[in-house]
Amino acid sequence: MKRDIITIGDLTNSEIEEIFDLADQFLKEMSVPAHPHRIRGRRTDAQSHLMAALFYEPSTRTRFSFEAAMLRLGGNVLGSADAATTSAAKGESVADTVRVVENYADFAIIRHPSEGAARAAAEYGDIPVINAGDGGHEHPTQTLCDLYTLRKESKALSSANVMIVGDLKNGRTVHSLVYALARFGANVIPRPAKGLELPVDVSRRLIEEYKATPVPARQFFAGNEEFGDLDVVYVSAESNLGLVPAKQRPRLDSDVNSGAPHRGIDVVYVTRLQGERLAGGEKRGDYPVIDKSFMSAKRFRDTSVMHPLPRVSELSYDLDEDPRGLYFKQAAYGVPIRMALIAKVLGLIPFVSTEPAPEMTLYSREDGIACSNPRCITHHPSERRHLRKKFWLIKTRPAMLRCIYCEHNYAPQCYGDVATRRYTTDLAELDTIYSDQIVFFGDEAQARETGFKPETATEKVRHG
Amino acid sequence: MKRDIITIGDLTNSEIEEIFDLADQFLKEMSVPAHPHRIRGRRTDAQSHLMAALFYEPSTRTRFSFEAAMLRLGGNVLGSADAATTSAAKGESVADTVRVVENYADFAIIRHPSEGAARAAAEYGDIPVINAGDGGHEHPTQTLCDLYTLRKESKALSSANVMIVGDLKNGRTVHSLVYALARFGANVIPRPAKGLELPVDVSRRLIEEYKATPVPARQFFAGNEEFGDLDVVYVSAESNLGLVPAKQRPRLDSDVNSGAPHRGIDVVYVTRLQGERLAGGEKRGDYPVIDKSFMSAKRFRDTSVMHPLPRVSELSYDLDEDPRGLYFKQAAYGVPIRMALIAKVLGLIPFVSTEPAPEMTLYSREDGIACSNPRCITHHPSERRHLRKKFWLIKTRPAMLRCIYCEHNYAPQCYGDVATRRYTTDLAELDTIYSDQIVFFGDEAQARETGFKPETATEKVRHG
Amino acid sequence: MKRDIITIGDLTNSEIEEIFDLADQFLKEMSVPAHPHRIRGRRTDAQSHLMAALFYEPSTRTRFSFEAAMLRLGGNVLGSADAATTSAAKGESVADTVRVVENYADFAIIRHPSEGAARAAAEYGDIPVINAGDGGHEHPTQTLCDLYTLRKESKALSSANVMIVGDLKNGRTVHSLVYALARFGANVIPRPAKGLELPVDVSRRLIEEYKATPVPARQFFAGNEEFGDLDVVYVSAESNLGLVPAKQRPRLDSDVNSGAPHRGIDVVYVTRLQGERLAGGEKRGDYPVIDKSFMSAKRFRDTSVMHPLPRVSELSYDLDEDPRGLYFKQAAYGVPIRMALIAKVLGLIPFVSTEPAPEMTLYSREDGIACSNPRCITHHPSERRHLRKKFWLIKTRPAMLRCIYCEHNYAPQCYGDVATRRYTTDLAELDTIYSDQIVFFGDEAQARETGFKPETATEKVRHG
Repeated sequence: MKRDIITIGDLTNSEIEEIFDLADQFLKEMSVPAHPHRIRGRRTDAQSHLMAALFYEPSTRTRFSFEAAMLRLGGNVLGSADAATTSAAKGESVADTVRVVENYADFAIIRHPSEGAARAAAEYGDIPVINAGDGGHEHPTQTLCDLYTLRKESKALSSANVMIVGDLKNGRTVHSLVYALARFGANVIPRPAKGLELPVDVSRRLIEEYKATPVPARQFFAGNEEFGDLDVVYVSAESNLGLVPAKQRPRLDSDVNSGAPHRGIDVVYVTRLQGERLAGGEKRGDYPVIDKSFMSAKRFRDTSVMHPLPRVSELSYDLDEDPRGLYFKQAAYGVPIRMALIAKVLGLIPFVSTEPAPEMTLYSREDGIACSNPRCITHHPSERRHLRKKFWLIKTRPAMLRCIYCEHNYAPQCYGDVATRRYTTDLAELDTIYSDQIVFFGDEAQARETGFKPETATEKVRHG
Repeated sequence: MKRDIITIGDLTNSEIEEIFDLADQFLKEMSVPAHPHRIRGRRTDAQSHLMAALFYEPSTRTRFSFEAAMLRLGGNVLGSADAATTSAAKGESVADTVRVVENYADFAIIRHPSEGAARAAAEYGDIPVINAGDGGHEHPTQTLCDLYTLRKESKALSSANVMIVGDLKNGRTVHSLVYALARFGANVIPRPAKGLELPVDVSRRLIEEYKATPVPARQFFAGNEEFGDLDVVYVSAESNLGLVPAKQRPRLDSDVNSGAPHRGIDVVYVTRLQGERLAGGEKRGDYPVIDKSFMSAKRFRDTSVMHPLPRVSELSYDLDEDPRGLYFKQAAYGVPIRMALIAKVLGLIPFVSTEPAPEMTLYSREDGIACSNPRCITHHPSERRHLRKKFWLIKTRPAMLRCIYCEHNYAPQCYGDVATRRYTTDLAELDTIYSDQIVFFGDEAQARETGFKPETATEKVRHG
Repeated sequence: MKRDIITIGDLTNSEIEEIFDLADQFLKEMSVPAHPHRIRGRRTDAQSHLMAALFYEPSTRTRFSFEAAMLRLGGNVLGSADAATTSAAKGESVADTVRVVENYADFAIIRHPSEGAARAAAEYGDIPVINAGDGGHEHPTQTLCDLYTLRKESKALSSANVMIVGDLKNGRTVHSLVYALARFGANVIPRPAKGLELPVDVSRRLIEEYKATPVPARQFFAGNEEFGDLDVVYVSAESNLGLVPAKQRPRLDSDVNSGAPHRGIDVVYVTRLQGERLAGGEKRGDYPVIDKSFMSAKRFRDTSVMHPLPRVSELSYDLDEDPRGLYFKQAAYGVPIRMALIAKVLGLIPFVSTEPAPEMTLYSREDGIACSNPRCITHHPSERRHLRKKFWLIKTRPAMLRCIYCEHNYAPQCYGDVATRRYTTDLAELDTIYSDQIVFFGDEAQARETGFKPETATEKVRHG
């Protein structure tokens, strides 16, 4: 079984901690004394392996750190392509490209402007695929660097309050990060730029899958006016595991000691405006700027400042010398983290804690609903000819489907029975799906266009 | 003597078989059990060698497989350049680039939009040059992959019927392929898109040099209406050698057994429309599409489907799971084939069967004719200042010249005597050329413009 | 202490000779018998090191030869980026990029269109940075290749007459070269294209820092009309050291023997028009063309022809076979020279002759003067937010400042006292600077705009 890393959800908490332990080991063996976060030297683990780097969007950090990681492991890299110089310029699909590249390299990393492109590549290629950023969807290896930085700084994630600032709508690093924070017990506090709020699908997932509880910020901060600019706090379930063992956890502020809930901001995580993902007419609002002045507020006295970089103007250079700034460390840890990830994914240093993934119900039909996200890879001109529409049925009563590629949710308004060609809007009835009998529709109009008629008392839609 | 691979004609049949035997050996030693066509690991043959990759046009397959091949041999690669990021952007000529790069790398691969660019690079550089595609001219390493795929599938080439579909005019892979097919005894059956027929120079060469006989398809297929869409079959000379030894050859269909000529289609070789080579106003006609429906015809029951990739829409994804489809294998064999070719060209594992190339008469003068192909490298703005016009005299009575770069033929209408400054249109008289005495002209107007006068009874043009 | 090579001034003459000796050793051990200037094979010196190649402008020679050098030393290379495929496309600053890359690679080479960009990178990164060309400023590794080529040809630099032809204004190779020539005792003879003369800052530096004496060409060549097209000769100080030990120096012409000053041209160094640096409306004048005809003049009988390449049309192909042409050798020596430089900069084979750099006075204030060079990196949109204005005070009476990045000189017209807010135009008074007291202004208007008033008899500007 090959191992793909497309979303942060593709790794369990234990696997993430295994990766961090291995990164620790690489740093211990290979870091330069004066720079404990920097790797030097070459191992031989991957010396018979090649990595293919498929970059359909610009990158410095991710590409260079993946390349450096592979070379430091003794492996080699197939010339980092960018779309303009590969057959993508001739209209080749991701599906074809990966089926070709699987014969040349032992694994591939991919960055692509379409959401779900990395999953499509993983589906078609029989080598491991690692997502290096797919549109506004996810960027899981950045999240690994972010979490590892906090661990190296001895910042506990459990009960930590992490404020996420900026373009929460299009920032793929944000999406991977908030899921991970919730899973490791941190509280997520969005502070979006106007009009660039966290997508509903993401916040819903925080609540429904990762068991976070949305609490009004006014209530969470007990009416403290210092936090009056905040709207909501996604409070993680207490049972979620912190990355740093409890006894090593520094006390984040006096509230911890008193047993009262912790009420400061531990991390401000800033992201740039994803200009390349804005539609033509889209307004950008007043984008927040984090600088020395902003960080001089009392509530930020012990607050770390993080940023996935590159920055544009939302994070001032006047914080570069500030000890609270961790952003260059996030970039620095890119090499040991990606070395560890590669070694694990290739099975050179295998995971020991891997568990079977939970079973999910797959729904896939050519008729009926299509993913409603226009940026989904299933709508890309070079892919829509061949990529089948596929959804996970993540909920019933009422039914909720999730595109397996871009992970946008879709709430169908009715469904039909392919045998009787009758449809119903009574979604509460549906408990399990038989994919060869049931077809979902966005609305009744679509059902009728597809040739279905409303059910009658005598001709009912069957279901499980 | 350095060894350049610019056209498929630069390798003898025996050398091609040597390359295939070496590729077999690499696959035997290095393939993954579950994927017998995929190379893994690193040899040390080329560990002190560097390859320079000069790409003036996009590439995935060719570039990545060459890079992978070089790395799997233990060598290394100079960062695959594309025109936009090299001095070509400043107007540097291919001739200068290769004379620089010869000092940095041990051999070079080149892809370029101009026909004949690879030959020019080989002429100026004193390292081996391998053509990775030069405009619409040739792409010999793709042909090696194509033939090797057929050999691995135990498809005999001798007497095989290969239908070539699509853009036969601009498809460089097609040109290299049809020569090789003829040389190995296969019959070539063109099925061009409208207006994109096989160039006259190519079909003439099939007949005159490779001894293929054009037979009307109606006659070849004995009036079988199933083949009514075909026009002509280039029937190869019987003496041409098949790639698979006779005793291992599978019977292709019942006709073989009966001793009657084989009358099915063994391979459908599909190519995409070379959109980047179409002139502005050029019509593309109705481009053929090969899909499950097309391949469901009885005549294609045992027919392999090949494609050099990338595809656009001429080859449907609905054939991807069909066992007749060999196109991903063609791409997969790119690594062992190119490993073998590199090892041979660098002399790391020398050819044993190399024969001296046949002697040809070179004609080169600054006055008189120029290559009539506007896409020839001799007309490229960065090259025309320095590239001398050069032709092989491939025929006399009447004279026929072939540009040594792009291999377009040129039939001069008259020639002159540089000593007497007299010209004649009596080409039948000319048997051998003395390059310091004879100058060819496209027509009489050109002769007169150059200052030549018609010969008279007393002032004759001398000739050999 | 890390070692950056940003200008040719960052290496002493002794260090340059050390680099040349090491290049000699590499050539001796690794060159191919038939090609004594070409390196083959792989050493292991740098096998645990990575080089990052940051190219914001096109390159073939420099990039390929640096890559080849690093690979021949056994090291490896992080995929040569170009601006379009890195985060620079998202607006990332050089300062941020280098602070990220310092964690991935052991040193970086950078090419950038802004003057001073390499110094900025060196300032922010804590790995060694080598300038591979920064706008029209310097290109020191090209100069190393140029000087080394002359040494290999046994051309003495001491008292050699080197004519520099073409775009002397924007040619960065020219600027590094003329300084080196002066330092090694050669005489510099500019022959610019019209309007593309040597910048005043450069010629002044030749005179003031490198002790060259400008002599009218008419006088230098004793009225010889053959040299009537020349304007001035920068005659180097006699004490400057030649690269070739005296006893090995070939006599350049008969004048040497007679003890009279040498009066021929030893080298014609041609450069192309730097089209990419011309402003929209800028005139290019009649650009000189060096060809067989030009070089057939008697004065050039024994003259070497050099060119950093790529050429456009200023250097004719008709000289390619001429033994006087050294330009392909300049390119060829790129690998051994850069191997030696890398080995030295990384400390793998340390310099033995390094001396402490001379102390200079740094002036840096946010108010007052800014660099007057519009192409300076301090004015680049992605850098001006954070790069502080910094100048060396290179002269007093009157004061002259030099931007530490682009090295343009700036002559302030007045200066003020920050304590009293008074200014004076009496620059002759100023001897030493106390950076916390003195602020320089371009002119009185700027001083007044900044809130300073003229000094009076009672309120004087204090100075050291």
